[in-house]
Amino acid sequence: MDNTSTPAEATSNNPTVGILGLGLIGGSFARAYHAAGWRVAAFDTDADTLAIAMIDTVDTVLDDASLADCDLVILSAYPEACIAWLQSRAQTLDELGAEGPLVIDSAGVKGALCNRAFDLASTYGFTFCGAHPMAGTEHSGYAYGSADMFVGAPMVLVPPQLDDVARLELLDRAHTLLSPCHFGRFSVTTPADHDRVIAFTSQLAHVVSNAYVKSPTAQAHHGFSAGSYKDLTRVAHLNPDMWSELMIQDADYLADEIEIIINALDKYRVALINRDRVGLRELLAEGDQIKRALDDMPR
Amino acid sequence: MDNTSTPAEATSNNPTVGILGLGLIGGSFARAYHAAGWRVAAFDTDADTLAIAMIDTVDTVLDDASLADCDLVILSAYPEACIAWLQSRAQTLDELGAEGPLVIDSAGVKGALCNRAFDLASTYGFTFCGAHPMAGTEHSGYAYGSADMFVGAPMVLVPPQLDDVARLELLDRAHTLLSPCHFGRFSVTTPADHDRVIAFTSQLAHVVSNAYVKSPTAQAHHGFSAGSYKDLTRVAHLNPDMWSELMIQDADYLADEIEIIINALDKYRVALINRDRVGLRELLAEGDQIKRALDDMPR
Repeated sequence: MDNTSTPAEATSNNPTVGILGLGLIGGSFARAYHAAGWRVAAFDTDADTLAIAMIDTVDTVLDDASLADCDLVILSAYPEACIAWLQSRAQTLDELGAEGPLVIDSAGVKGALCNRAFDLASTYGFTFCGAHPMAGTEHSGYAYGSADMFVGAPMVLVPPQLDDVARLELLDRAHTLLSPCHFGRFSVTTPADHDRVIAFTSQLAHVVSNAYVKSPTAQAHHGFSAGSYKDLTRVAHLNPDMWSELMIQDADYLADEIEIIINALDKYRVALINRDRVGLRELLAEGDQIKRALDDMPR
Repeated sequence: MDNTSTPAEATSNNPTVGILGLGLIGGSFARAYHAAGWRVAAFDTDADTLAIAMIDTVDTVLDDASLADCDLVILSAYPEACIAWLQSRAQTLDELGAEGPLVIDSAGVKGALCNRAFDLASTYGFTFCGAHPMAGTEHSGYAYGSADMFVGAPMVLVPPQLDDVARLELLDRAHTLLSPCHFGRFSVTTPADHDRVIAFTSQLAHVVSNAYVKSPTAQAHHGFSAGSYKDLTRVAHLNPDMWSELMIQDADYLADEIEIIINALDKYRVALINRDRVGLRELLAEGDQIKRALDDMPR
């Protein structure tokens, strides 16, 4: 088949991506690789979602046969399901040897998942690299995915412990295989550092937003709210099944961050109770200065 | 002068708005009325700001002479400065009698300011109506104002206690005089109800956002943050002088709201410490359901 005239049409000569889980993130990966002309092999436990995705985006079901064709496999199911899949396919990946795909995940926590995946990869001789695309919406599911979900977004990579040469080779391979997604930039970190920072930047944001709407006053606010309320409560709407699994995997760091913001908030409360305007002004000025310094940092 | 060919040019036949304080909000009112062809009389304690505004937006300085021409006066300084101005001009407003302007404010708290302004208005025989435009940005100052700041935004009006006929007349007058701003809708409430709700929708949002960035982890987050962090911390950048004055005036309601969110947050923290995934999922699902119900409410 001549694919020069239809570059976006998937053929068996094109590279193949395997995707486990066609939710918001997996569904966006599927669309991005399809749009770039890759073959897309995918699986989702929801048969309807898989059937819908196969109408115009997914070329074939991800199974042992199509796995053998994959250049890249992206695990986009919940963390426990990713590990279960990896365990069940480890023997197949072992048999593929050096011809096998790079396997990455896309989960929001790295410690528990990466450390088990690194062990499996080491035991069975395949290559796994942790990955966390910093993208998403407050909506869940395949229907909300899009081919440009990752355009310009940061991508955090969490490679296994390797010597410098092997590490550079792995990161270079990941960059190349992820190029159809057009990430804005790549960072590299360890599972523990990732989970410590993500507890603050992402999980705490969801907890605070989710807690915010629980005030009884929320029921009386209509017509009284501007952009600040809207921003603070946007991610109150979330997928409780996914987030509870992610948060429990990052429980210690997240519990610490919640304690930190509780202690910070209590200072404002005490200043208000004491009618301490000077103290309240200092607390507000301190936050303002920190925020401005953070915004001025190179990204 | 024939103003039919240049409808946006201010002439002495056009209505006049007086504006005290040319910050973000006052500066936006000045631009909106100027764009609608009104004469704009304004004052700001900062001579440079006033001079800049007089280049292309403000027609004259707001003083006793120009006050006599005003159809509407908008107090957009800090609350204490608004009251001080009103006290100093009460005699002039008294002398203007029924020909005098409607006076409104635009402050973020209503109790302290409105109750004193209602007393002055009653004593000196002028008309005051509290007003709080639900608009703004995280930036302060005249430079950030815009003629379309209020387009589509909610406007909360806080009239004095009146019989039904007088109340309808006042609200009708306010709607007409505010039409150049193109607010999206008007609500009417009491000073106490306003302050109770605004402590939640606006002041708490600023406190939580300002407290959020105080975690030491904030210094390590670059490359790891997506939209949720950005939204949660947008209004961490604020004007500490203005917000400390507003918050102290609303101290009891705001302290209550901080206590409510602290108690809500602590439940997530305890669930995490106990590795209670079912309990954490319930907490997250509860917030998700509340948020979705709020978003479905008529606005």
